Amino acid sequence: MHSQRKEPRVTEAVAHDCTRISPCSAQAIELDEGDELVVIDPQGQQVSDLVAYNRNDLDEYLSSGRSIDYASKLWLTTGDLLYSNRSRVMFDIVEDTCGRHDFTLTPCSKDTFSIIYGETEGRPGCEGNLAMALAPYGIGVDRVPIAFNVFMNVSVDGDTGRIAVLPPTSKPGDHIRLRARMPLVVAMTACSAGQSNNFQYKPIDYRVVRKGG
Amino acid sequence: MHSQRKEPRVTEAVAHDCTRISPCSAQAIELDEGDELVVIDPQGQQVSDLVAYNRNDLDEYLSSGRSIDYASKLWLTTGDLLYSNRSRVMFDIVEDTCGRHDFTLTPCSKDTFSIIYGETEGRPGCEGNLAMALAPYGIGVDRVPIAFNVFMNVSVDGDTGRIAVLPPTSKPGDHIRLRARMPLVVAMTACSAGQSNNFQYKPIDYRVVRKGG
Repeated sequence: MHSQRKEPRVTEAVAHDCTRISPCSAQAIELDEGDELVVIDPQGQQVSDLVAYNRNDLDEYLSSGRSIDYASKLWLTTGDLLYSNRSRVMFDIVEDTCGRHDFTLTPCSKDTFSIIYGETEGRPGCEGNLAMALAPYGIGVDRVPIAFNVFMNVSVDGDTGRIAVLPPTSKPGDHIRLRARMPLVVAMTACSAGQSNNFQYKPIDYRVVRKGG
Repeated sequence: MHSQRKEPRVTEAVAHDCTRISPCSAQAIELDEGDELVVIDPQGQQVSDLVAYNRNDLDEYLSSGRSIDYASKLWLTTGDLLYSNRSRVMFDIVEDTCGRHDFTLTPCSKDTFSIIYGETEGRPGCEGNLAMALAPYGIGVDRVPIAFNVFMNVSVDGDTGRIAVLPPTSKPGDHIRLRARMPLVVAMTACSAGQSNNFQYKPIDYRVVRKGG
């Protein structure tokens, strides 16, 4: 399906305690309260769309609108909180070596590629990949919300409101560490949208540090 | 429930073909493809949180993330399109005399008032009011997404990402005209959040112009 995409040469080994999300794919994991999730950009300039659901009530989900409203800023980083649609804290951002992420745009999809890029090959995009990863939980594609787009660099012109998707500022090894504040189902991608990842379609790594582990 | 709120004096009659949404409340209506919905700020500086669902498949809903992405701007106005989560056009914005609306924040809720304003009286907010208006359609509060916040004035600092909720720029009689591109259930509020409406809690009017009517 991604035959037109040239997978970048992987020049470093995956750290032994990390799991790799292959280019243009997604994975889902479960976290308990107090667990930490470290999302890592191993090669630089890659984006990971991240969504989360209360594991005990999947109708509660990560909400960009709540998180932005309570922080009074678009770009969240160390010390900020990620809220659910029910205004409860899902994550503390406890470490962030990059400092620039987006929380305004929906995961790219087959239709995104058609509308923005004129693509016709029907790649599932982050939205389709997230839905596949979340299928075992009964979460369908219509319930994939605006993601916390880790390392995604979206500029805003404060005068006109124009936005632009720029190459991520993340360097190899940059990471963000999120501490779960409730039991969660989390899904993450290695992003499929060329604009978002400077047309390099790299992998994403992650590591889970279990509470007390 | 709103006993602490002083309802502003209504100084003009409701236009004969308009319906009034009382302060701090919401209403739901149905539109057919081609119908036009005119949302009017009759007294100025009031906000209306607007959400929409495909009437034939209520899992399809108005999506801020898609709309912003495809327009490449945060602030949408005449000539712009409002998309669903499935990347289909729900509305054309065919007229807009105000020119400033928000599409990044979730409707205010009981918890918003608690977290941002320190209120303890438990007002339902736009989220609760939208859910009440949508209850006949089986749409619960967890399915109220980020709204198209008509007349809401949210500034963004393009350097820091800081946002601020400012008084609306809308003058008495300002309005936005939306043409439905599919059969829709639409819910709208007269906003309950003090910051959004300059602490004046005014009504909102609307008018539906039926296709060919």
